[in-house]
Amino acid sequence: MPDRLTVAFLGFGNVGRALADLLLRKLDTLRADYDLAVVPVGVATGGHGLAVDPAGLDLAAALDAVRSGGDLAALHAGTPLGATADFIATCPADLVFETIPTNPQDGEPALSYDRALLDRGVHVATANKGPVAFGYRELSALARERGVGFFFESTVMDGAPVLAVGREGLPAARVRRVTGIFNSTTNYILTRMERDGMTFDEALREAQAIGIAETDPTLDVDGWDAAIKTVILANVLMDGDLRPADVEREGIRDIALADVESAEAAGERIRLLCEAVRAEDGAVRASVRPTRVPIGGVLAGVTGTTSIVDFETDTLHRLTILEHDPGPETTAYGLLADMVNIARGRHR
Amino acid sequence: MPDRLTVAFLGFGNVGRALADLLLRKLDTLRADYDLAVVPVGVATGGHGLAVDPAGLDLAAALDAVRSGGDLAALHAGTPLGATADFIATCPADLVFETIPTNPQDGEPALSYDRALLDRGVHVATANKGPVAFGYRELSALARERGVGFFFESTVMDGAPVLAVGREGLPAARVRRVTGIFNSTTNYILTRMERDGMTFDEALREAQAIGIAETDPTLDVDGWDAAIKTVILANVLMDGDLRPADVEREGIRDIALADVESAEAAGERIRLLCEAVRAEDGAVRASVRPTRVPIGGVLAGVTGTTSIVDFETDTLHRLTILEHDPGPETTAYGLLADMVNIARGRHR
Repeated sequence: MPDRLTVAFLGFGNVGRALADLLLRKLDTLRADYDLAVVPVGVATGGHGLAVDPAGLDLAAALDAVRSGGDLAALHAGTPLGATADFIATCPADLVFETIPTNPQDGEPALSYDRALLDRGVHVATANKGPVAFGYRELSALARERGVGFFFESTVMDGAPVLAVGREGLPAARVRRVTGIFNSTTNYILTRMERDGMTFDEALREAQAIGIAETDPTLDVDGWDAAIKTVILANVLMDGDLRPADVEREGIRDIALADVESAEAAGERIRLLCEAVRAEDGAVRASVRPTRVPIGGVLAGVTGTTSIVDFETDTLHRLTILEHDPGPETTAYGLLADMVNIARGRHR
Repeated sequence: MPDRLTVAFLGFGNVGRALADLLLRKLDTLRADYDLAVVPVGVATGGHGLAVDPAGLDLAAALDAVRSGGDLAALHAGTPLGATADFIATCPADLVFETIPTNPQDGEPALSYDRALLDRGVHVATANKGPVAFGYRELSALARERGVGFFFESTVMDGAPVLAVGREGLPAARVRRVTGIFNSTTNYILTRMERDGMTFDEALREAQAIGIAETDPTLDVDGWDAAIKTVILANVLMDGDLRPADVEREGIRDIALADVESAEAAGERIRLLCEAVRAEDGAVRASVRPTRVPIGGVLAGVTGTTSIVDFETDTLHRLTILEHDPGPETTAYGLLADMVNIARGRHR
């Protein structure tokens, strides 16, 4: 008999729906490889209502309903549920995938949602950077206390196993420095400027046109998204206790085409470099700023939406991980990987 | 009370001794981070005898004895042991670090040693490619049957978490293709040829002079080492069943400086590229051969002793890992990581 794991979706946007697709596609593999029978029992959306069925929800039907602009109410079993708060308080899932949008100010309301779920003894796998950047210590301590998992592989470099490498690939190591390029939008813009001679504004409009940049590009362009990810790595892998506002942060809004060209003339390229480093006094400091890097080196070779992280440790001198071609489906995969690792007890 | 884990060293060359140094340095960290009290109870060397003490062996004294050209006999407790076979049959360790030299023909005698240890219910962590390339399926099945671990992170890209990423970072994924540069010696030689205009012979002598190449460079230069590592990745991550002789293999012995220069003129560099790919018929095929790669791409940027692996999967499109500055101490770290992961039950 396989282990039964009931799961629910809190948030059902691009990532949540990509995860639902992936989960349906991988049900047989999960059973074959991990003896794991995953049963969806709930979906809570922003604009399409919510549905819970402890006996098993038809996830394909939920996808169809949402994609065709309908409502999930018809799939709900039992007494009607009110708002998200009811869903969080009563949803009969062993694990909840939380994928609501990131709030870069304070991580709310997801921070409270995740706290409430963990407090109920529900595992949480999230792609939402907010609760992790603002509540990692608290939420991971709570998860430990309740014996459940709080995993969030997809918050940095999508589904690339950056945090898994920290847990499984660097045991007993001390991370001295983490460097990287964590924001795809700004890297795409810089690449278009250097490759195609676009101005910042032209490259930004191009990024918006193909859906890489948001209509309000502030979070990416001013380095907030990169700062939040840097905080997550600093706090999780280096035992830091930073918040996004603690990061020395400079975005790429003021990078002119002339800056890109003068760097090129000097054999360099500009990258929005993120860094967390343990200072002499033991404290962890973090920064995000446009930095000139030598052409021919690995960082300059990171173009378009590719991202990279580089670890310096006391045991492996330098270890680098690159992720290529990110998308909702790679973010979704990080959540699936978290689920498998929690289900086999690796959160303990 | 921390968990007590007794360990023994089978092989005490550069890697075994670097591991002993690292273990002594990390004893407190292992206790603090993993509640693990590691107790060395045995060391078997090639030319300096062996010593077993079930109550705990003085590892620093063993290092001193071997480094000063002495013998371990004085550290032995109890009735004298004969040869390695006795050590394997009776050593009272929960886990053995096997680091004897790789035999590229058939993996022996390490294959038999590891089999005997696993059969006794002893965990094995090895840096030796032979037993893995020739006996992975058999030994991992035996380990499962006996409820022990058989881990070998250090066999490919030293201590970089390549196999850990397969286990923890890519659950339920299907690896379609693995590509990489796995042999440091040949990459160093190619880099010296392209950077400094050396001939193959000059670059090889240079590599030998600084200890990167063996006196008999056949294993590296003719692609055997790379082929063995490719087999390990193909069999472990892609469920292949290859042996080193199954790899289409071409080394770099016939690469002339003129070849390097003509590649450069075409905007390319030559790399000894390793590949394992799932063919249309489902079979896994592997090759090692000098390949021209575009300058400016990631592969051409892999110079000197750096190594790289690139995974194509059905979930993450492409994931790349690079390791820089390898040495006996990074190989040793892979063994330490294996030990931690086995001790916390992640072999199950």
